[in-house]
Amino acid sequence: MEVTRKNYKDCLNTVYSAIEEADFLAIDGEFSGISDGPNASALTNGLDTPEERYTKLKKHSMDFLLFQFGLCTFKYDQTKSKYITKTFNFYIFPKPFNRTSPDIKFICQSSSIDFLASQGFDFNKVFCHGIPYLNQEEEAQLREQTEERRNQHANGVGTPSYISPSSSKGPAHIPEEHKDFINRVVEKVEALFANSEKTLDLEPCTGFQRKLIYQTLNWKFPKGLHVETIETEKKERYIQISKVDEEERKRREQQKLEKEQEELNDAVGFSRVIHAISKSGKLVVGHNMLLDVMHTIHQFYCPLPEDLQDFKEVTMCVFPRLLDTKLMASTQPFKELITYTSLAELEKQLKESPFKPPQVETAEGFLSYNTAQEQLHEAGYDAYITGLCFISMANYLGSFLTPPKAYISARSKLIEPFFNKLFLMRIIDIPYLNLTGPDLQPKRDHVLYVTFPKEWKTSDLYQLFSAFGNIQVSWIDDTSAFVSLSQTDQVQIAMNTSRYAESYRIQTYAEYIQGRQQEKEKLGQTAKTWGEDSWVKPHYISSTTCGFGYPRGLRKRSISPVQGESGSGEALITDGWSHYSYADSAGSKKMKTDDACGQSNTEAVESKTSEGWLKTTDSSDSAGLSPVPDEEENPQGTDPSNDADGTVTWQQASTVQGRKGRKKKKKSEAAESTTSLFEVPEVW
Amino acid sequence: MEVTRKNYKDCLNTVYSAIEEADFLAIDGEFSGISDGPNASALTNGLDTPEERYTKLKKHSMDFLLFQFGLCTFKYDQTKSKYITKTFNFYIFPKPFNRTSPDIKFICQSSSIDFLASQGFDFNKVFCHGIPYLNQEEEAQLREQTEERRNQHANGVGTPSYISPSSSKGPAHIPEEHKDFINRVVEKVEALFANSEKTLDLEPCTGFQRKLIYQTLNWKFPKGLHVETIETEKKERYIQISKVDEEERKRREQQKLEKEQEELNDAVGFSRVIHAISKSGKLVVGHNMLLDVMHTIHQFYCPLPEDLQDFKEVTMCVFPRLLDTKLMASTQPFKELITYTSLAELEKQLKESPFKPPQVETAEGFLSYNTAQEQLHEAGYDAYITGLCFISMANYLGSFLTPPKAYISARSKLIEPFFNKLFLMRIIDIPYLNLTGPDLQPKRDHVLYVTFPKEWKTSDLYQLFSAFGNIQVSWIDDTSAFVSLSQTDQVQIAMNTSRYAESYRIQTYAEYIQGRQQEKEKLGQTAKTWGEDSWVKPHYISSTTCGFGYPRGLRKRSISPVQGESGSGEALITDGWSHYSYADSAGSKKMKTDDACGQSNTEAVESKTSEGWLKTTDSSDSAGLSPVPDEEENPQGTDPSNDADGTVTWQQASTVQGRKGRKKKKKSEAAESTTSLFEVPEVW
Repeated sequence: MEVTRKNYKDCLNTVYSAIEEADFLAIDGEFSGISDGPNASALTNGLDTPEERYTKLKKHSMDFLLFQFGLCTFKYDQTKSKYITKTFNFYIFPKPFNRTSPDIKFICQSSSIDFLASQGFDFNKVFCHGIPYLNQEEEAQLREQTEERRNQHANGVGTPSYISPSSSKGPAHIPEEHKDFINRVVEKVEALFANSEKTLDLEPCTGFQRKLIYQTLNWKFPKGLHVETIETEKKERYIQISKVDEEERKRREQQKLEKEQEELNDAVGFSRVIHAISKSGKLVVGHNMLLDVMHTIHQFYCPLPEDLQDFKEVTMCVFPRLLDTKLMASTQPFKELITYTSLAELEKQLKESPFKPPQVETAEGFLSYNTAQEQLHEAGYDAYITGLCFISMANYLGSFLTPPKAYISARSKLIEPFFNKLFLMRIIDIPYLNLTGPDLQPKRDHVLYVTFPKEWKTSDLYQLFSAFGNIQVSWIDDTSAFVSLSQTDQVQIAMNTSRYAESYRIQTYAEYIQGRQQEKEKLGQTAKTWGEDSWVKPHYISSTTCGFGYPRGLRKRSISPVQGESGSGEALITDGWSHYSYADSAGSKKMKTDDACGQSNTEAVESKTSEGWLKTTDSSDSAGLSPVPDEEENPQGTDPSNDADGTVTWQQASTVQGRKGRKKKKKSEAAESTTSLFEVPEVW
Repeated sequence: MEVTRKNYKDCLNTVYSAIEEADFLAIDGEFSGISDGPNASALTNGLDTPEERYTKLKKHSMDFLLFQFGLCTFKYDQTKSKYITKTFNFYIFPKPFNRTSPDIKFICQSSSIDFLASQGFDFNKVFCHGIPYLNQEEEAQLREQTEERRNQHANGVGTPSYISPSSSKGPAHIPEEHKDFINRVVEKVEALFANSEKTLDLEPCTGFQRKLIYQTLNWKFPKGLHVETIETEKKERYIQISKVDEEERKRREQQKLEKEQEELNDAVGFSRVIHAISKSGKLVVGHNMLLDVMHTIHQFYCPLPEDLQDFKEVTMCVFPRLLDTKLMASTQPFKELITYTSLAELEKQLKESPFKPPQVETAEGFLSYNTAQEQLHEAGYDAYITGLCFISMANYLGSFLTPPKAYISARSKLIEPFFNKLFLMRIIDIPYLNLTGPDLQPKRDHVLYVTFPKEWKTSDLYQLFSAFGNIQVSWIDDTSAFVSLSQTDQVQIAMNTSRYAESYRIQTYAEYIQGRQQEKEKLGQTAKTWGEDSWVKPHYISSTTCGFGYPRGLRKRSISPVQGESGSGEALITDGWSHYSYADSAGSKKMKTDDACGQSNTEAVESKTSEGWLKTTDSSDSAGLSPVPDEEENPQGTDPSNDADGTVTWQQASTVQGRKGRKKKKKSEAAESTTSLFEVPEVW
């Protein structure tokens, strides 16, 4: 269903009930650009830390506009044994609500625009009929403004900007050149009183003239008139004057207030859909969804926080359950079976053996997509096939159960290991951003940081390191790159040979990180003096003391579906990614070890995961999450992968694989190189 | 005529000949936004200096896109006694030429976009079918790249990015997972050699796979094959392999080079139209055209220079004759007759007495506009009615001649006083930017600079200065404003009374300017350390030493149409705006008096205006400016307003008015309050 400003209000209830009845939701966004940074390789360096990547995306991607939002709801129909889908394709545009409302500026990147144009994107639908939106702060401000205006009205003050202190007591000062004009208006009004007409529409005129008219009429005709500025479709403003008695005047004032209220809700616009998704607490599936999530929060909730940890917390408040199909496809047991994880490729592969095409049906009254006629890069279609990918992969996990299950629900414990881990594009050794805990910290002691003249190309680096066999080059900018050697013990040799080099310089990764850290500390001291250098000043100011101020309307929620289970966060952390070291307050290179808040901050993160989920959710949340009948009849406890305290650990999952392997030869072949079902997603 | 990427190449010659035959041109641009600054009042303060205004517009407006350009050519037809018009409405979009070409980012301002949407603007035409363009530097770079690639080809090096140093001697290293794929490709190629087919299209595949294919085929089949990557409409890339003998291979290479050349010209795109306008040297008319001129130079020539003086010089190179109809309408003798100078209002007023509707006819094959059905804010239409306004006003000047002339040519001396002065929006006391000399420097000794708490409103300022009668408030930002008193001798009183005030502070204008100057000097010293803070780094770096580097292809031209007349620049300067002081190297507050270049810079400006015009123009320029037959029969020397050395001074023009006044009662009534025909355009 295409949703624009024209049909938005009529569709809203359809959207709400689709979200409410769904088992899971799939989303996708289209943006006016990807990166305003110097080049893509600098934006996504293969050896970024999660903090660096977040900071870069925030800095270089948030000034683009999310202008198409795809939502596909999936509801499982027991009797038909298939999912019923409802797809919505929303066009979004920050149409200013009125002349004092925020006038959003956004960047367009011509390559992105050109790409969308080549895919048949309809820009007129966005710019002419896009649904407006407000973030939480803007909404609050607007409500305050309206309230204020209302109070002024109640106190008998007219439109304030038109009343200057000196003019309220006497006639307005009318410049010579406007006297004729104003006299003509007064004559017309006098005629209005004499005749049987009820209203008088004046010709469009300038703001200054309207001011003079308001002042003059207020003074000459303090009673019996209602004066209003009306804007035409073509943005011309004219004044409408109506004869009214006191009762009529009050009725009109009341009408005006009601209209204002409705307009205010209209201005909140598309944000209401995101609020509904958030409130539902349902599983939200996306493909390579980090940017989608960042943009959604930035645009409809609040400017993104400075700090990655704060971002994770806000994200968990807005979307308590996320699943990234690109990460899922890049992880065992899918990793071995799936060569290409781009959405289009993935969707094709998941229709073929050993996977099964998902059984879906378009709900009545909704446009159905045909996956054979690709409509890629329409957000609604992309959301739809993302959902299909998720279903295929989830169901494939069911084939490992005893007895095998053809349908795995979105609430199955089997898919929990994939929750709240967002795929990190092109990072060599950190596959995902972990939203519910510290991120992986791979050892990078085989990595060198090399600086060189800007004329150097990749081939020069290959040449330089030709003695060391296979190397991997990750460009940072024109004059620097990371070079990963295949063996750690080569690092010292490389360092030694480079000692006398003049054209280039080599540092170990540790040295590089230390240098950056020192730079950052130095910059941090001056930053306060010199201010932000981004062209759009962020509205959100990260508090320099402990604690992240939650945006209005957001409550902190834990995602663990288990009641008051202390330590369940821990269980998620020790999920078998054993060759990574985890950040702790001592070893973490990015945690706030310098300031007094460091410790309490860490504690906050840890205690968060151990919070009882039911404690912080209200009944509407649990209603949204009530299991479908099937699940009630066949409680999840019977899933062999569910352990006593309701968490799935990788170790246990591997036991399942062991059993499975014995039963199904074909399956085990595909995964023969792995020792456990959910193996560590190594460098891929 | 609507011109998009689709019909652009077919239209180009039509555009060229329309420009060539025209008597004058009218232009207009539509932008994706106006200002990314905090608010419009801060962008256009009523007491800006021209330097401040230029700097603000450059900083806050140049990151928007000029995406629709209107050009209307006007050619006078003697026999019909009317102008023949040709209107072109170009849609413009910086579609990236290839993957290495500049990926332009531009800002959209939602209020501007929404406004255009409400006027029926077609965004799909811009974004899907807009004509690309390159500025002079980009064009040069692209030509160099093509040249380089050509040389590499000539030296037998293949597509360089696909050849790594180690692989050129042996087979490519093919990762395990791609071996099957590559083997299948090799089998297919072997089959191609065996069968009668000439070409083989492979399936679309990834860049890495294409690299492997290139490497493998280069090594396995060094001769007899032509391998090429082809991109489909949907941006998918696939490889096409053709069997070729040596001759065929060479022919294909040649074809490829020619195609490259054509593609390069296509990439220069719309800039060629601007080059043609510039080269023609014709009078270019616009309405409130400063932003149009700035955007046009910025987008199609070079990033704007830092310095206003340098901007003036570049502008005179690109557009040697400009005329702003908003300035013309705001100046005597029009000022007294015209109440509103917005384009739409002006056009309406100029159809009424004492003006005459211009006689125009649309050229055959061109869409004709009906001014009754307004199509405002379509650039082509706006250019068209701007031209109409110019014709009406120019012809009105003819009514003052003896005998009166109904038609005044675009080359008449009567309109020269309006040349190269661009209207300055909302500056109280400086009506225009003077492109060919120093700007007006009004005395501002009745102006106060006031700072106050951010809660203050205009009414608080009125209150504060209530003792001083009429004041004028020009907001600077939330906490400061200029307050103009009606009498200069009140300034000292205001200063005295404010001495003990705590909530606000008052400075004289002179003190304020001095403070800013000191701040600027301080900032200038640190700026070099801290760099630019704008989000888009300017490509253009203003040279810190003397002299402004002219963009490629631009030559310095003087605009005086008089041969080698030394001092004609002076004549323009002493044009009767006698109550203004002019900047000189000693008195100017903004001129570079601190650095050693200051003096030579000033000299350069002055010598420029005294340069002979014919010395720097070539024959094509003079051809473009050859008088129409009528003008030859009736040489301009017979115009009474032409003095001996070919310049019009305001004094002489006033004599004309004197004579006129005696002959035509009606006319003199309209201008009765003026003492001379072209009176000083006072504060309006």
